[in-house]
This record gives sequence, C-alpha cells and structure tokens, in this order.
Amino acid sequence: MKVKVVKKVLDANDRIAEENRKLFDQHKIFVINLMSSPGAGKTSLVEQTIKAIKNKYKIAVIEGDIQDTYDADRIAKLKIPVVQINTGGACHIDGNMIREALPSFDLNKIDLLIVENVGNLVCPAEFKIGENIKVMLLSTPEGADKPAKYPLMFQESAALLINKMDLISYVDFDLKKARHDSLSLNKKLKIFEVSCKTAAGLEAWIAWLTQRIDEFKK
Amino acid sequence: MKVKVVKKVLDANDRIAEENRKLFDQHKIFVINLMSSPGAGKTSLVEQTIKAIKNKYKIAVIEGDIQDTYDADRIAKLKIPVVQINTGGACHIDGNMIREALPSFDLNKIDLLIVENVGNLVCPAEFKIGENIKVMLLSTPEGADKPAKYPLMFQESAALLINKMDLISYVDFDLKKARHDSLSLNKKLKIFEVSCKTAAGLEAWIAWLTQRIDEFKK
Repeated sequence: MKVKVVKKVLDANDRIAEENRKLFDQHKIFVINLMSSPGAGKTSLVEQTIKAIKNKYKIAVIEGDIQDTYDADRIAKLKIPVVQINTGGACHIDGNMIREALPSFDLNKIDLLIVENVGNLVCPAEFKIGENIKVMLLSTPEGADKPAKYPLMFQESAALLINKMDLISYVDFDLKKARHDSLSLNKKLKIFEVSCKTAAGLEAWIAWLTQRIDEFKK
Repeated sequence: MKVKVVKKVLDANDRIAEENRKLFDQHKIFVINLMSSPGAGKTSLVEQTIKAIKNKYKIAVIEGDIQDTYDADRIAKLKIPVVQINTGGACHIDGNMIREALPSFDLNKIDLLIVENVGNLVCPAEFKIGENIKVMLLSTPEGADKPAKYPLMFQESAALLINKMDLISYVDFDLKKARHDSLSLNKKLKIFEVSCKTAAGLEAWIAWLTQRIDEFKK
C-alpha cells in the first residue's frame, strides 16, 4: 500500500518536472538541483559560484528550507534574484514547489537557475524538479562512508564536490575511499575537491560548469 | 489531499509506537531515539556511551540506515546485541520497523535500547517509535543556523549534544547562537558540549542519562 502511494506521488511529480523542463528549455535556462546534508556548504558554493560567473551569465536562485530565510538573505546580498521556498514539514523540494516559485522571476532574464534543495541526503534525490543536472556536496567532517549509506544521491548526481578540504587534516576522512565508492556507484560522476571557505579548487568546478552551460545554450 | 495522507500515516504510526512503548514498559526497557544529520557522530556517541555504562546496564542497539551494515558492524565489535534495519528508500525509522526488529532480541535482557535513526534532520523527528526520549546531535561543522532551519527536531528532543567541539576553532560555529536558538525552541532542552572523538565532555551526558534510566527503572 505504502509503496503504491509513494509511486503515485513520484509519477505525478515527474510530470510536473517535465513541464518545468519544457518551460526552462523555451527560455534556455540551465538549471542545477543542488543537494547535500545540512551544513555541508551548499549556500557557500552558491555564493562562490555567483561571484565567479555573474558577469558571464544572468543568474537566479531558489532557496529551499523547512522554514526561515537565512540562505535567501545571504544570496540577496549579492544582488541576485532569489526566491525562498519554505517547505513546511517537507524534507525536499518537489516539482510543484518550483512551478509555483517561477512566476516570481522574469524567465527571459535568466541563463542559470540554481535551486538549493533542503539539507538532506535522502529524499531530494528522488524528486525531479526539471533540472539539467543534479550536483551534490559531501563535506569532509561527514565521513567517507556516505556513498555506501546514501547511494541514490551519488548515482543521480552529475558532479560531486568534496567540500571543506581545509578541514581534512583535522577529521577522519578517507578521501581515496570516498572517491572510489562514489565512482563505483556512478562511473560518470565528476568529482571536485574544494573548500568553499577558502575558494581552493573551485576553478575546476567553475570551468566544468561553464562548459556545461555553454553547450546547453548553443 | 497530501496533508491528509501524511496525517493518516502518522496516526497509524503513533498507534504502533504506543504498542511498542507498552512492550518496553513491561520489560522495563529505557529507549533512546538518537537523531542527527548524516555524519554528525551518532555511532561514535553510541560507542562511547556503551563503553561508559555497559557494566551497569544491559544494552542493545538498533541501527537504521538506507542500506549497508557499517554502523551495526562497529557496534557488534563491542559485543552488544545489535540489529540493522535497512529502510530501503525511507529517510527515517518508523514504529513498524522497530516492531519487526524486536523479535531478534531477548527483551528480558535489555535495560537500555539505543535506536540510531537514519541520518536526517527532518523526518525522523516526526515518527515516534516508542522511545522514552529523543536525543539529537548537532556537530560544529554543520553551523549554528540549524535550530532555526530544522526546528522540529530541537523541539522534540530531551537532550542536544553539540558534537565535534574539538573542531570548533577551525569552523565558523557560533556556540552562543546555537545554544540560544535551541533553548528558544525548547526551554527544557538539556545541552551538552562534547567531542565523541576525544571523549571530552561526555561525563556530563553519561551522568544525566544514567539518572534518567535509574528513575525510569525505579
């Protein structure tokens, strides 16, 4: 019974996500669905990415949180259009939440839409929102056992940013194991070792992302 | 519609949790529902707690993970009865999963049952399992904005362990804000500052927990 209900919800969500996707294609908007555990550094990555490429692309951001507007306030300081989705109890963003947020934007003035999902390694990976790519962060203090424990997100993502590399000498993080287990789940996964705090390693991420956006917009 | 379905699921879960509770009461088993983000240190806390009080109480553990048996393997090394629940896609443990795990234990030989929930700051707080208390960890690398963003877990917990205090000088964690915002949500919340890695600060947690168990078993 429970499985059936869940399947129905996911099927309905997929249809809405496809409609969102059509709308994004019409407007040539490249969409990133950004996911991670709470506190892994999603908002810091969004800030760093905006700073690096805001002169090249028109960027907009959707922030997903159970409640509050902390992250949206951080992004608004960068003079970027941002909408906060408060999911209430829901532990993920779904296609319908995105659909309802879109009228707040001028879609003709967006090249790149970054959707920062609710901090959660499980459910966000199950719900499509109309994205081009899913991108995830894993921070070194979380430990290298996460690919084995939360495989779906690693399987669904196009890129994995191993964040908080500045802390690696203070925590027990087996980088080799994290890389190996992630690639075992998804051999196409592009992995970047970064620190969103110091900006170390972000050039490679920016170069890869820029190439993806440019190919899409051709 | 969605809200109705969710409410039905939660109501059904509450009934099963109550049945679990009756069974635990009959056997005088004190039950902890342990929750946090992925990688905040739940298993390390379970290990440290076992080491500290295994001579005083008969302890058993239920490990909840989407998949794999990493954490159960760690606990089994301490010669403690342990059952792994693999939730499949589910991002939390519910009352029925606990009910189905219980026949694996001899309930007459347990004083303290620790249930390590799936790493997730959202949904585990919504599903009762028949616990005496909910306990949560927040690790310093996650940041002090978590009470504001994930209020329910802070509201539902009897104790909050602020973990990875050994990293506090390397991360931007506003301890005062974390304490203040947590207590604003739940003024009865008992807060411990600990490092499960170095064992610093754990005596206070152990003393508090021991007192709770002894009062229950009186």
